[in-house]
Amino acid sequence: MTGATFTRHWEIAWRGGQARSTSRLVAEETAIALTYNGSTHAVMMGTPADLEDFGIGFSLTEAIVERRSEIRSIDLIPNELGIEVRMWLDGDRAEALAARRRAISGPVGCGLCGIESLEQARRTPTRVEGRGVAFPARDLLNAMQALSPLQTLNQHTRSVHAAAFWSPRSGIGPVREDVGRHNALDKLAGAIMPDGGSACDGAVLLTSRVSVEMVQKAAMIGVPVVVAVSAPTALAIQTAKEAGITLLAIARDDGYGVFTHPRRVLLPDEAAPRPGC
Amino acid sequence: MTGATFTRHWEIAWRGGQARSTSRLVAEETAIALTYNGSTHAVMMGTPADLEDFGIGFSLTEAIVERRSEIRSIDLIPNELGIEVRMWLDGDRAEALAARRRAISGPVGCGLCGIESLEQARRTPTRVEGRGVAFPARDLLNAMQALSPLQTLNQHTRSVHAAAFWSPRSGIGPVREDVGRHNALDKLAGAIMPDGGSACDGAVLLTSRVSVEMVQKAAMIGVPVVVAVSAPTALAIQTAKEAGITLLAIARDDGYGVFTHPRRVLLPDEAAPRPGC
Repeated sequence: MTGATFTRHWEIAWRGGQARSTSRLVAEETAIALTYNGSTHAVMMGTPADLEDFGIGFSLTEAIVERRSEIRSIDLIPNELGIEVRMWLDGDRAEALAARRRAISGPVGCGLCGIESLEQARRTPTRVEGRGVAFPARDLLNAMQALSPLQTLNQHTRSVHAAAFWSPRSGIGPVREDVGRHNALDKLAGAIMPDGGSACDGAVLLTSRVSVEMVQKAAMIGVPVVVAVSAPTALAIQTAKEAGITLLAIARDDGYGVFTHPRRVLLPDEAAPRPGC
Repeated sequence: MTGATFTRHWEIAWRGGQARSTSRLVAEETAIALTYNGSTHAVMMGTPADLEDFGIGFSLTEAIVERRSEIRSIDLIPNELGIEVRMWLDGDRAEALAARRRAISGPVGCGLCGIESLEQARRTPTRVEGRGVAFPARDLLNAMQALSPLQTLNQHTRSVHAAAFWSPRSGIGPVREDVGRHNALDKLAGAIMPDGGSACDGAVLLTSRVSVEMVQKAAMIGVPVVVAVSAPTALAIQTAKEAGITLLAIARDDGYGVFTHPRRVLLPDEAAPRPGC
């Protein structure tokens, strides 16, 4: 924790034709700069909590490091404008990142940089393992229903997203919340990723929509199943297909839609679960 | 339009304990590269429609140009990876942007770039005009209710955000939709901004939450009132206060909350509307 995650704000509630002065709890939002070896890589607006997880998770899901041990140090430096997540990488990783930055920014007038940048954005997803993993359909629905009471910041503010990891062995593990859904997933990635491992024996639960970047990030940490409350985009479906991820979305109390690789979702009359990977 | 904005996708709907194979309309999502004078400024994932508006609006709300006439040309160049919005700026603007890019990227090891980047993110908002503008509370609620049937892409997909402009003179004007809420607002900005003018005689309607960037963008086009379906963040409230924007949020059928500068919202027993600015 590096600051309050919500604060009380005055409002005039104009409801049913009546106006009354009241107040409400509102989610905080802070500028967060992710820096590597003294250079800023990205600035994101996010919830000022679990920022070490955020730094580690972002580094993993954006392929800046392959394992967390490649991050030599990570410090949170708050100032009046926001918070710097200051990371130092090992020599090789630092050099690789510097080369990538030079390639992305390109010289002014590079001509083809539109296409080069599009290639960068459409990076081919890692194909996840967990080929044999499968979970009962009902267990995944139960997991989504169990998530709601664990969203502590959202209970106060009703305006932040959550990402959580669930496995049949341990139920719902870490839950991470953020005003940004990508940040919530990055924080989760940082919280669950054992050094050099993958999250191939469970599912990531999301309270948000599923855009392509959410699938790319999930693929980077090797999650075989993603379950989301809201709808996927067409590109997210295509990317999940390519990445070998089972994508479940529009999860409501009565069930969900399975959009890719349905073999990992076991219907009641099917074989026993295969939790290993 | 530069491509389909939605497509039909197969799904297994597992609902009420029954599984059935069906299909569903899903929003498209495309990588969009915004380039200026041959250099990529940003790549965003978005809905492939109204991309000229997007290029113009982004340029205005991100202060790359002050008026749309400073964009000498704008071309949409689709390729297999996405779409490049290729813009050429006038000489002065191009030089200013190049200087800004050099300042932002900074040399490797600049040491202070964490703070410099945070300063960039927390840019002081322009203070909007429209000091005398005020609208009846009920009119703003009616406008929000009239928006829903105009969200044509969302009626198919139930997964995209809209931004629209409303004024008492002309009702709801352009409506723009996108899988990303920032993009929807940028597209709207591009659609409504007359050259060198401001949108000071009406309100921007948003179907999304209100983060600080939404307020900063609204301030850049001089909108005095923002009404949103979902909640604001604390920083969005603070920034609306500083920018002189009246922020209404959590707009439901029964009303909304007024979080800043309530003088522009007229209750039934108050004076007549003052639509001019």
